[in-house]
Amino acid sequence: MNYQESLTSYIAAFVSELVHTGVTDVVVSPGSRSTPMAMVMAEHPGLKLHIHVDERSAAFFGLGIAKITNRPVALLCTSGTAAANYFPAIVEARYSRVPLIVLTADRPHELREVGAPQAIDQIHLYGQHVKWFAEMALPEKSTEMIRYARTVCARAAAIASQAPAGPVHLNFPFREPLIPNLDDVLFQQEERPNGYVKVRGGELTVDDTQLTEIVSRISGREKGIIVCGNIADEKFAANITEVAERLKFPILADPLSQLRSGKHRLDDVIETYDTFLRNKEAKAFLKPDVILRFGAMPVSKALTIFLKENHQADQYIIDGAGGWRDPAALSTEMIYCNESYFCEKLLTHVQPGKSSNYIEKWQKVNQLTKDYFGLLKDVTRLSESRLFSQLTDLLPDGATLFVGNSMPIRDLDSFFTKNHKSIKIIANRGANGIDGTVSTALGAALYSQPLYLVLGDLTFFHDLNGLIAAKLYDIDIRIILVNNNGGGIFSFLPQSQHPKNFELLFGTPLNIQFENAVRMFNGEFTKIKDWDHFSEAMTDSVGKKGIHVYEIETNREQNTTEHRDFWRIVSQEISNFVKGEHE
Amino acid sequence: MNYQESLTSYIAAFVSELVHTGVTDVVVSPGSRSTPMAMVMAEHPGLKLHIHVDERSAAFFGLGIAKITNRPVALLCTSGTAAANYFPAIVEARYSRVPLIVLTADRPHELREVGAPQAIDQIHLYGQHVKWFAEMALPEKSTEMIRYARTVCARAAAIASQAPAGPVHLNFPFREPLIPNLDDVLFQQEERPNGYVKVRGGELTVDDTQLTEIVSRISGREKGIIVCGNIADEKFAANITEVAERLKFPILADPLSQLRSGKHRLDDVIETYDTFLRNKEAKAFLKPDVILRFGAMPVSKALTIFLKENHQADQYIIDGAGGWRDPAALSTEMIYCNESYFCEKLLTHVQPGKSSNYIEKWQKVNQLTKDYFGLLKDVTRLSESRLFSQLTDLLPDGATLFVGNSMPIRDLDSFFTKNHKSIKIIANRGANGIDGTVSTALGAALYSQPLYLVLGDLTFFHDLNGLIAAKLYDIDIRIILVNNNGGGIFSFLPQSQHPKNFELLFGTPLNIQFENAVRMFNGEFTKIKDWDHFSEAMTDSVGKKGIHVYEIETNREQNTTEHRDFWRIVSQEISNFVKGEHE
Repeated sequence: MNYQESLTSYIAAFVSELVHTGVTDVVVSPGSRSTPMAMVMAEHPGLKLHIHVDERSAAFFGLGIAKITNRPVALLCTSGTAAANYFPAIVEARYSRVPLIVLTADRPHELREVGAPQAIDQIHLYGQHVKWFAEMALPEKSTEMIRYARTVCARAAAIASQAPAGPVHLNFPFREPLIPNLDDVLFQQEERPNGYVKVRGGELTVDDTQLTEIVSRISGREKGIIVCGNIADEKFAANITEVAERLKFPILADPLSQLRSGKHRLDDVIETYDTFLRNKEAKAFLKPDVILRFGAMPVSKALTIFLKENHQADQYIIDGAGGWRDPAALSTEMIYCNESYFCEKLLTHVQPGKSSNYIEKWQKVNQLTKDYFGLLKDVTRLSESRLFSQLTDLLPDGATLFVGNSMPIRDLDSFFTKNHKSIKIIANRGANGIDGTVSTALGAALYSQPLYLVLGDLTFFHDLNGLIAAKLYDIDIRIILVNNNGGGIFSFLPQSQHPKNFELLFGTPLNIQFENAVRMFNGEFTKIKDWDHFSEAMTDSVGKKGIHVYEIETNREQNTTEHRDFWRIVSQEISNFVKGEHE
Repeated sequence: MNYQESLTSYIAAFVSELVHTGVTDVVVSPGSRSTPMAMVMAEHPGLKLHIHVDERSAAFFGLGIAKITNRPVALLCTSGTAAANYFPAIVEARYSRVPLIVLTADRPHELREVGAPQAIDQIHLYGQHVKWFAEMALPEKSTEMIRYARTVCARAAAIASQAPAGPVHLNFPFREPLIPNLDDVLFQQEERPNGYVKVRGGELTVDDTQLTEIVSRISGREKGIIVCGNIADEKFAANITEVAERLKFPILADPLSQLRSGKHRLDDVIETYDTFLRNKEAKAFLKPDVILRFGAMPVSKALTIFLKENHQADQYIIDGAGGWRDPAALSTEMIYCNESYFCEKLLTHVQPGKSSNYIEKWQKVNQLTKDYFGLLKDVTRLSESRLFSQLTDLLPDGATLFVGNSMPIRDLDSFFTKNHKSIKIIANRGANGIDGTVSTALGAALYSQPLYLVLGDLTFFHDLNGLIAAKLYDIDIRIILVNNNGGGIFSFLPQSQHPKNFELLFGTPLNIQFENAVRMFNGEFTKIKDWDHFSEAMTDSVGKKGIHVYEIETNREQNTTEHRDFWRIVSQEISNFVKGEHE
């Protein structure tokens, strides 16, 4: 049996099983060593191959697909630094719990650490940042090794998907010649033709005895709040809003909780807390004594501080993936239970509560704050706060909104108000990097249209290369580029008080004409003149094809002032309101 | 003593020692957690800070500076995926033996793996790919901890520089508040003000007894060759050419050996072997029985095969860094000895040999091959082979030539002829990636002008972001962009025989108008019309400021044909010549 036959059968078995596990998308970066895997994958009718020359962008593109589809996506690259370029997206996937199957080609053992070209040590290349690493055996065609290839594949996909979802890494040593026999490629396996092994991933649940105990401690408590961060489960919105209604607890809903938009009940959803929890009187007025937390840590720093100040409260953290998302060490109970299951069970145990003064307080302060959002909408010049306070109105029903890190996600958190549209909001909040944003959004855009991406100029610059995917694969994307020529977030941090090297180290203006970049990728570039122009542009954008970039030029200093002025004014009004309530 | 004082003194001690070790350049990527280190570094008059928003490019930029200066360069970034973006350059630095000191800021212990924002596991983040990792202690101002900060710094710089040079990683946990007291920054240390500890790095040498033994085996052997790959030692050229003359051994000089250009003796330097070692008769005619190898593995595949076919020959590999650069397992002796020291000692032991028939054979075949290079220069259309065969003439004396991977380095190897100009040739040949090329070249350009970068379109695209450094810091660079709209190297590989998915998986045309990209960075773009135009452009380029990109558009298919036709014709002539010699 020759090597080519072994190579072909072994890879075909692997790829065949990959499709059986439910993988549909592979992001391939061109290279020599990965040739046999790439050529065999291209033969399988069940796989969509996306080719991406820049491996950093490629990995984020795969992350975007996996994020929106909740299916593991495979990445394939050649040996060497190509694989190292995957690292940022792998780290993000780990912390944002997104399933990725990373396939790297490698030199065989005899060519490792001996000065062979493009050979680097790929064993455990990503260290702790993948859930599983396996060094694959050299291709062989024996029944045993075909079984091996298929089970490793099924297992890799299962580990990637199992909560907490995340990346896995398989390293494939391939010898030359690297060309498979494409006449021989048989995806139809003789043994178990419909998939070798199906992994039924279980879910964490706590039993009824424990649930009863938890319920007895929570229900009937008057001053309870629910805090929801980023969560992927689509059933969660309906479940948690019902729980809130039953318990009479307000839900502080991070934009990534998917609770601010949707057909579910919004009455108990509180979304302007990032503004009003900056106010001392409000915080005293709303002091909780029990807190239920779901999902990732919320974006809002004001909320984080509020939670920290309320360390006296019992805090229950429900995490279906058995993590430890508690940076301030506040939890009294860490409950490892699927979030929707927990909600459903809770509802069977809790009697409907009577109306609560406490939830009304939250609703009133929230409404008062929103009333003042009118101030933001009155700003006539182009401003970041007005932009985000208008997105609710401007985005079409059914849109997906991808938000860049640093300021955009914070402004969205502060100013994006709840609504009954169906708007899905996503962001890279595993490690909160500004890298790979364009690519992640484009990956998501493949499966979710219309997609809007809002991001700052440094974030756009960091992953300009990512736009190539939109050009090559005709992916439609509307990009709202908030261009404040540098790192706007630093103007909010203490270093802004030290002007000496501030612009050098933190402001970092790039002075780039992004129009040229957009043109390079055959995109359309619109420089927004004023708010009317922006409204028109957004209305026009709905059915547009290709890349459309709408640049909103703002000023970092003015932006800081605008935010601070707004918070000062609202804070004053909130103080007055709270004092009135006490009288 | 408050935390700010501790933070300031501890970092100032570290930075002060960094300068004493000889570090002059730091590449800083903006971020919040790294604020104290960045602000203190900016105060030190002995450090040049280069700010780079994209950490991947930043790390390659630092690599370029370290490559050209042979001094360790420090990198500084914030926590999270920022640090993961350094990975490709770190891997390249490891395998190309370039010293880097990687400084990453991190959250303190209590904020790790608990869902805190922008916190990832940074302990041993780069795994085996750094020579040393240390998790730093939290900042303290005690005498002991100041000593600790200074010694760790001195040690890190020493390990990075010690052969084999490479990257080291120090991870700094910082607590908030992150602002140092800049009134307090005192780089002048009370204890040992001129540097805490100087590390005198030793060098590997073999003793005289061993040398005598080696010499007795080598000298007097008639059929000996010397093979030189990439080597950083500047004294090496003079030393090895003297050795060659004494032993009457030809030197097969890889372009990165720095032996093809310079004031040293060129008579024994053979540079067209990549062409003539494709010919069977030539290989039989030139069969060696002893081989001395210095530096990294050479680029040429024809040479690699020739070495492999001559496994009967004694092969001595001299490596001053104690590596194992021997992918075909051919070495009879692995000699861990500084290369220049080895040459100098050898010269004291070896008597001048008489003239040798064997070296003359090499010289004749080499000259014959070069005579046919005229064929390349007769090509009237824009062609890759003509470009590289003309670079010797076109580049000004004193130029640094940075060559991209994939085809350019191979074409340079094939067609760049020896000369007495002073031309330094560099490339990223540790892991041979196409990533980070623009940035590495720009880092080198900071310290070596005029600098010319020759690279392909995919390589240019992969690191377009790198051009921002040229824009922000007015670095002069002349870029010769060989645009064959895709991955030209794959047309030389067996997959090109399988047209079905070839363009999709390997050809990967991007169809990009690079003019827009260049304009974005305020560069000048020239589309080369013909060879006269190119000659003029090169002549004009010498004193130019800023970014200048000269695009040479070629055709992948035609290029393969041109190369193959040329090799076929020359091969025929070489066969004829060899047959003539045997008669």
